[in-house]
Amino acid sequence: MNDVTLHGYWRSSGVYRTRIALGLKGISYKYHAVNLLAGEQSTPEYLAINPMGLVPALEIDGRIYTESVALIELLDELKPEPQFYPGDAFARARIRALVETINAGTQPLHNLRTVKALGGTQEEKDAWTQSVIHRGFTAFEALLERHEEGEQSSRGPFCMGDSPTAADILVVPQCYAARRFKVDLTPFPRVLRAEAAMLALPEVAAAAPEKQPDFPGL
Amino acid sequence: MNDVTLHGYWRSSGVYRTRIALGLKGISYKYHAVNLLAGEQSTPEYLAINPMGLVPALEIDGRIYTESVALIELLDELKPEPQFYPGDAFARARIRALVETINAGTQPLHNLRTVKALGGTQEEKDAWTQSVIHRGFTAFEALLERHEEGEQSSRGPFCMGDSPTAADILVVPQCYAARRFKVDLTPFPRVLRAEAAMLALPEVAAAAPEKQPDFPGL
Repeated sequence: MNDVTLHGYWRSSGVYRTRIALGLKGISYKYHAVNLLAGEQSTPEYLAINPMGLVPALEIDGRIYTESVALIELLDELKPEPQFYPGDAFARARIRALVETINAGTQPLHNLRTVKALGGTQEEKDAWTQSVIHRGFTAFEALLERHEEGEQSSRGPFCMGDSPTAADILVVPQCYAARRFKVDLTPFPRVLRAEAAMLALPEVAAAAPEKQPDFPGL
Repeated sequence: MNDVTLHGYWRSSGVYRTRIALGLKGISYKYHAVNLLAGEQSTPEYLAINPMGLVPALEIDGRIYTESVALIELLDELKPEPQFYPGDAFARARIRALVETINAGTQPLHNLRTVKALGGTQEEKDAWTQSVIHRGFTAFEALLERHEEGEQSSRGPFCMGDSPTAADILVVPQCYAARRFKVDLTPFPRVLRAEAAMLALPEVAAAAPEKQPDFPGL
C-alpha cells in the first residue's frame, strides 16, 4: 500500500467507517471529495470509479475497491493489528452479524437515495429514518446483551470486550446519523458505551465528519 | 457442528443464500419454518432467536448466529472446502464488494418490510423493486466486467472464475427475486452466466424455494 486515495464525502456513513478503519490501522491516504448533494457520484467519471454510484471507493496502488465493509475486511487482512475481527470463527460470526445489522439492516434504508425515493413530507421522511435506526439499534443492543450473557470477555467497553472491532467501527457513524435525526439513544446503553470508548481514541476522533476537508463549515 | 437448525422461510433471499452455502459445504441441518406472511418473525419466541425479526437464523450446537453474509463467512471458516472467498486479500475484497452490492445495496431496499412501509399502489411498489434490482445488477455486472479486464482468471462461468464463491451464492436468490418482479435480466450476461453455472450444481438446485418443506404449493 504505497499509494492510497479515499473517494468520499464528509457526511457519508460508509466513508466515515472507512476513515476510522484507515486511522486505526495507521494508514495515511489522499482524499478526493465527491459532493453527493451536487450529484457528483452519478457523473460518468465517478461511475467509472464505483459503478454503484456510492461512496466510499478506495484506490490502492491504482486499483479500486468499494463497499465499506469489504474495505474494513481488506484493511484487516492487509494489516492485522489492531484486529477488527478477533477471536475464533464463532466470535467473528458475531462481529459480522453486528456489522450487517447496521450495514445491510439499517443504513441502506435511510440513506440519501432511499429517503429521496420514499416521497412524502420531510416529517414523514424523518419519522421513517428514526424508526429504521431505532429498530436497528434495538436488535444491535439485544445482540450485545446476548454476547455478554455468553462470554465473560465481552463486557465492554467495546462491543466485544476491551478492543475495538469492526462492529465498533460501524457503531460510530450510525450513532452520528441517529443524533442528526434526533433518535433517543438512551435505550441502548451498550451502544453508547461502545461509541464513547471509540470517540476517546484519537484516530477515531480525527475521523469525525466535521474535521474533513469538504466539511462545509458551520 | 453436530446439531444444526436453520430457521427460515422458503422465499426469503437470505435463507436461500444460507441453504446454498450449507448445501455446497455438505452440511446437513434441521429446518424450522418461520411464516413471514403470518408475522411469525415478530413473535417474542422468534425475537429471542433473532432480535432483528429477520430470517435466517442458524443454530449451531445450541448457539444462534444471524445475518446471511455472516453465516456464509462462518461456514467458510468452519469448513474451508469449497472455498467461498478464494484468492488473496484483494480477490476477497472484490468478492465481498460484490456480496455487499446485493446484501446491503439491493435486497434490503426491496424486502417485504421495506416495500410494506413504502406505501403507494402495488404497481408503484413493483416499479420501486424493479428499479432497485436493475440498479444493483447494473453495478454488479460492471464490477464483473472490471474483474475480467484485470484478471485472466475471472472469465467465468462463475463470478470470479471456475468455482463458486460467496458472490455467486448471492446471485442466485437475487435473480430469483428479479424474475418474480419481472426485471429484464438480458442486460446482465455475466450475472446470468453465473446463475446458470450455479443452478447446474445439484446442491444449488436442491436449495430452490419451491423444494422447501414450507413451500405452499402451486
